[in-house]
Amino acid sequence: MHWFQKEFKLPSYPRGFHLITDLVLDNCPEIQNIEKGLCHIFIKHTSASLTINENADPTVRTDFESHLNKIVPENAPYYIHTYEGPDDMPAHIKASLMGASVQVPISNGRLNLGIWQGIYLCEHRNRALGRKLVVTIFGI
Amino acid sequence: MHWFQKEFKLPSYPRGFHLITDLVLDNCPEIQNIEKGLCHIFIKHTSASLTINENADPTVRTDFESHLNKIVPENAPYYIHTYEGPDDMPAHIKASLMGASVQVPISNGRLNLGIWQGIYLCEHRNRALGRKLVVTIFGI
Amino acid sequence: MHWFQKEFKLPSYPRGFHLITDLVLDNCPEIQNIEKGLCHIFIKHTSASLTINENADPTVRTDFESHLNKIVPENAPYYIHTYEGPDDMPAHIKASLMGASVQVPISNGRLNLGIWQGIYLCEHRNRALGRKLVVTIFGI
Repeated sequence: MHWFQKEFKLPSYPRGFHLITDLVLDNCPEIQNIEKGLCHIFIKHTSASLTINENADPTVRTDFESHLNKIVPENAPYYIHTYEGPDDMPAHIKASLMGASVQVPISNGRLNLGIWQGIYLCEHRNRALGRKLVVTIFGI
Repeated sequence: MHWFQKEFKLPSYPRGFHLITDLVLDNCPEIQNIEKGLCHIFIKHTSASLTINENADPTVRTDFESHLNKIVPENAPYYIHTYEGPDDMPAHIKASLMGASVQVPISNGRLNLGIWQGIYLCEHRNRALGRKLVVTIFGI
Repeated sequence: MHWFQKEFKLPSYPRGFHLITDLVLDNCPEIQNIEKGLCHIFIKHTSASLTINENADPTVRTDFESHLNKIVPENAPYYIHTYEGPDDMPAHIKASLMGASVQVPISNGRLNLGIWQGIYLCEHRNRALGRKLVVTIFGI
């Protein structure tokens, strides 16, 4: 059985939803050594998140940003945690709605994603430095 | 240690939330060989999703559909990705709110779900063909 | 390779979001034996959930409760599943928005969380007894 674990930093992204599948693959060539296994990707932050969604039309990612802003608006009158700016508390809530990790099966040395699936970094803050990921790859 | 991985197609379901626990179990008898382990179930689509929720009263699933339609309505004026129909962009957003995979502990040859828990297929499109799942079962 | 699996009950918490990282660590000293691995934490309930978010300012948890109540209000006119009380159906929906499990990498004998990350129990019912968790720890 193989175990591989790697921590690396993504480049900085603007607020919004961004495809990072290729970046993950570039950082994790060890996926090719696994015939059956899993790839767990974890983000070490509470105001950015990870999800899996459509990898083709970029307007899907634009609409994600627009609608998440609707579900979790800034400046809700009942927010108490406001001292880090109006984008901070919404960022925390969005992060939990999307999730801190995704896990994808590995089959025959490749991420077994559907043909339309890609991995998204969801950046919920207006200004953030590159986010740290921990990727754990394991299998036979 | 045991590793088992299987890809199979669910039957087509109408838009809404559907219990698929038994279908997963029927397709994965190998769960019985695991004393301590995990079962990871992944959906290879971006407009349908998986979650775990109440396995008893079907009105829970009806209310899920009603309220997800409220959280993510069709025809929001700011949607740009509209050319695949009014149910498409909401389906993508709902899919990420629910998630592309669930992972359940295996204990003594059985999925260690709570007594009220079942696995849901969440079908977010009006018309969709059977969805493909990848189930990865591993443990000792 | 190590496999460790444990089921235990949390104390009862009031409705809201609660940090349980230390409780998980106290119950799972075996994490220290793992150099590279994963810790999967699963809740066996459908009206409480788990997520990862900010571990410092308690007002973040207060705002989570306020805003989740906004996203999933009680007494929506279309809810059919109402016989267990007005907090029940919202609890089910919130549970799926947050999720039934979290999975954290283990590196060098420790949960490899970001410095601001903690594990939350999300209690969505007004009155609930202690919730049961299954923790599965595996790695080398």
